Amino acid sequence: MSDPNRRIRRLDARDPEFLTTLDALLAFEGSADARIDAAVTEILSAVRTTGDAAVIEYTRRFDRLDVKSMAGLELPKSELKAALDSLTVEQREALRIAADRVRIYHERQRAESWDYVEADGTRLGQKVTPLDRVGLYVPGGRASYPSSVLMNAVPAKVAGVGELIMVVPTPNGEKNPLVLAAAAITGVDRVFTIGGAQAVAALAYGTQTLPQVDKIVGPGNAYVAEAKRRVFGTVGIDMVAGPSEVLIISDGSGHSDWVAMDLFAQAEHDELAQSILLCTDPAFIDAVDASIERLLPMMPRHETIAASLANRGALIHVDSLEQACAIANRIAPEHLELSLDEPEPWIDRIRHAGAIFVGHWSVEALGDYCAGPNHVLPTMRSARFSSPLGVYDFQKRTSIIQISEAGAQTLGRVASTLAHGEGLQAHARSAEMRLHK
Amino acid sequence: MSDPNRRIRRLDARDPEFLTTLDALLAFEGSADARIDAAVTEILSAVRTTGDAAVIEYTRRFDRLDVKSMAGLELPKSELKAALDSLTVEQREALRIAADRVRIYHERQRAESWDYVEADGTRLGQKVTPLDRVGLYVPGGRASYPSSVLMNAVPAKVAGVGELIMVVPTPNGEKNPLVLAAAAITGVDRVFTIGGAQAVAALAYGTQTLPQVDKIVGPGNAYVAEAKRRVFGTVGIDMVAGPSEVLIISDGSGHSDWVAMDLFAQAEHDELAQSILLCTDPAFIDAVDASIERLLPMMPRHETIAASLANRGALIHVDSLEQACAIANRIAPEHLELSLDEPEPWIDRIRHAGAIFVGHWSVEALGDYCAGPNHVLPTMRSARFSSPLGVYDFQKRTSIIQISEAGAQTLGRVASTLAHGEGLQAHARSAEMRLHK
Repeated sequence: MSDPNRRIRRLDARDPEFLTTLDALLAFEGSADARIDAAVTEILSAVRTTGDAAVIEYTRRFDRLDVKSMAGLELPKSELKAALDSLTVEQREALRIAADRVRIYHERQRAESWDYVEADGTRLGQKVTPLDRVGLYVPGGRASYPSSVLMNAVPAKVAGVGELIMVVPTPNGEKNPLVLAAAAITGVDRVFTIGGAQAVAALAYGTQTLPQVDKIVGPGNAYVAEAKRRVFGTVGIDMVAGPSEVLIISDGSGHSDWVAMDLFAQAEHDELAQSILLCTDPAFIDAVDASIERLLPMMPRHETIAASLANRGALIHVDSLEQACAIANRIAPEHLELSLDEPEPWIDRIRHAGAIFVGHWSVEALGDYCAGPNHVLPTMRSARFSSPLGVYDFQKRTSIIQISEAGAQTLGRVASTLAHGEGLQAHARSAEMRLHK
Repeated sequence: MSDPNRRIRRLDARDPEFLTTLDALLAFEGSADARIDAAVTEILSAVRTTGDAAVIEYTRRFDRLDVKSMAGLELPKSELKAALDSLTVEQREALRIAADRVRIYHERQRAESWDYVEADGTRLGQKVTPLDRVGLYVPGGRASYPSSVLMNAVPAKVAGVGELIMVVPTPNGEKNPLVLAAAAITGVDRVFTIGGAQAVAALAYGTQTLPQVDKIVGPGNAYVAEAKRRVFGTVGIDMVAGPSEVLIISDGSGHSDWVAMDLFAQAEHDELAQSILLCTDPAFIDAVDASIERLLPMMPRHETIAASLANRGALIHVDSLEQACAIANRIAPEHLELSLDEPEPWIDRIRHAGAIFVGHWSVEALGDYCAGPNHVLPTMRSARFSSPLGVYDFQKRTSIIQISEAGAQTLGRVASTLAHGEGLQAHARSAEMRLHK
């Protein structure tokens, strides 16, 4: 339970203990849960062995859906279309605009095959092709987000993925029309109303009805995350995401209410979400603190917001924007807002972030829904080494090596020398056999 | 022990049991080993807690190196240079040619930042930057390959990685001059003579002497693989590779000795390596089988080759090249040789492979060392969803979202509608606050 007296913490970067405090605040380790491990092990094994029958049984048990065959768990395309038609004009238009903008942005990410021919006729290159078949997990219940369908399905389709299969649990048969409408708009090929580890298993191993996919993407609960971790290797997976994060860098320009609400928008996801402000102006920090106090009671999700801000939030006074950027690079945040009147010079000072929102008008919520870039972004400092979800996650590359007869003569001698150096004589001999006597 | 009477198996794709037999032949699951798990858990925890002291102690215990401080486990650059100077002219030139060719090929893979500005002034883009610091694991002992240094270090350097730290165990102080020379040629920044899970831990968590890296790449034994799996998330890792594989598609053109030796080159890696021939011509299969029998006794590593061919190899008769391509796509091999007089029409029939070697002159060994493309390739059917190691593995992307005041008006309404639909009111409010009244 959240304690109404607990508030967002105030920190000062000049404090000698600051970096230790910051690291403790950032620390997050997904706790291993033996019960989840055991359940996932059983479910993966059952679905792998018996296929449809196991999926039907788990769906009966966990989602209280009673069907005779897997066909009863597949939604016809007409039902997706009907969900789209059932929306208000405003909702339908908003989904369409968002999908179009996301598509236009992601089309820039499509990689093309290339090759080059050397003087002796040797041709080298890289063939870029889409994945054959991809599974898209969409959570049911409270975290069932149509925007998540857009952000995963659009790059897959732009990449040219042959078949996109969506799974979404519908406990007690309750369907989210916005999610189904998003599937219709983005051209998802098949939809099954299954979820949990059993859905991940069905996608990873295939069943009699549901064909094996090559990669599984999309968010899910702890069971889904553990199942994805386990099937990695059999299929590809996207990242296993941690709690969502925003870091706002401010010089005191802008509106304290805007900053407070941007912190709330992150915090309302769940109690582990992280909202941090770095600001050079102590008076502005006071103003944001006051805005938080004034605006919080008006928010429908105020309990979650309050708990998240108290647990993992911070308003931090920094000496300079240089220091703010150094701290930002240590945090490597999922979302970074440069809440500055003159943000441009600071963009290249940020070396690690999932997405940078530049200037006061660039609020994260626009990026979450409709600016165009993907909202699936690296969390938990992984922006140091990974990237937003993109078309590149749905393409793969194959090296093309076409050596000419002349090329085999020059390269064969080099390979032979190096192979003998490594004690791999068959490697050496296979090259030497192509040498003219 | 290998049984000299066990030979490579002969299969026929027309056999009704063929696909079942093939799937069993391809099946490989790295066995979980409780002893390795426990050892890795202890080592990771000790290095994370005590840093240098733990690394020094494990290196004393496992590699029998007795040093007082971590400085004693770092090689000065002068020693790398001396190793390079100690090589024969032929070896030095071979390393240089290989490194140059790998560099030229990989330079084509470098992605650049991009952006575009919309009519209302909104700017969207993606900033591409190199990783700050990368760790490169190089095994000691029998599998200590200078080509592995080239294939990992060159793309990292082409990407512009700030600091590249190599670790290579030197049990009893024995150093491999070819490996150190390859480090010198590729511009590796620092080299520590440490290995095993303790080296992975030092790279992942950092110690007093060895700075934390952002990603760890390179092959290793079961302890190293398990340690990499565990630290994934704290740092990035490359793939955890399975046994190496070659698939050769032949129409009976070419030389049976060449094909036999190409199968040997794969099989000599270890007893789990997989060498498979698909051939439309039964007489040529007989010829390859005879070549295997005649050439095998001449090979220094004949025991490993014989065991590998008997365990996991196959000579398979197929009806047609169409059928061969269908089987190849099911196998999704790491290496594929199109051993055909007219290979071009078949390249695009191959949807899944790490690298395609086109025509009789394109022997895999050239790709392993010096053709230019990377030799770190997806194994165990993962070519269905993953790619050769490349410059893209050492770059990361950050979305740039710079919304204009006008853009915030149109996008804000869309975001507000979608956010309310998802029940995320703070998201909606943060967008609505930017709307003009």
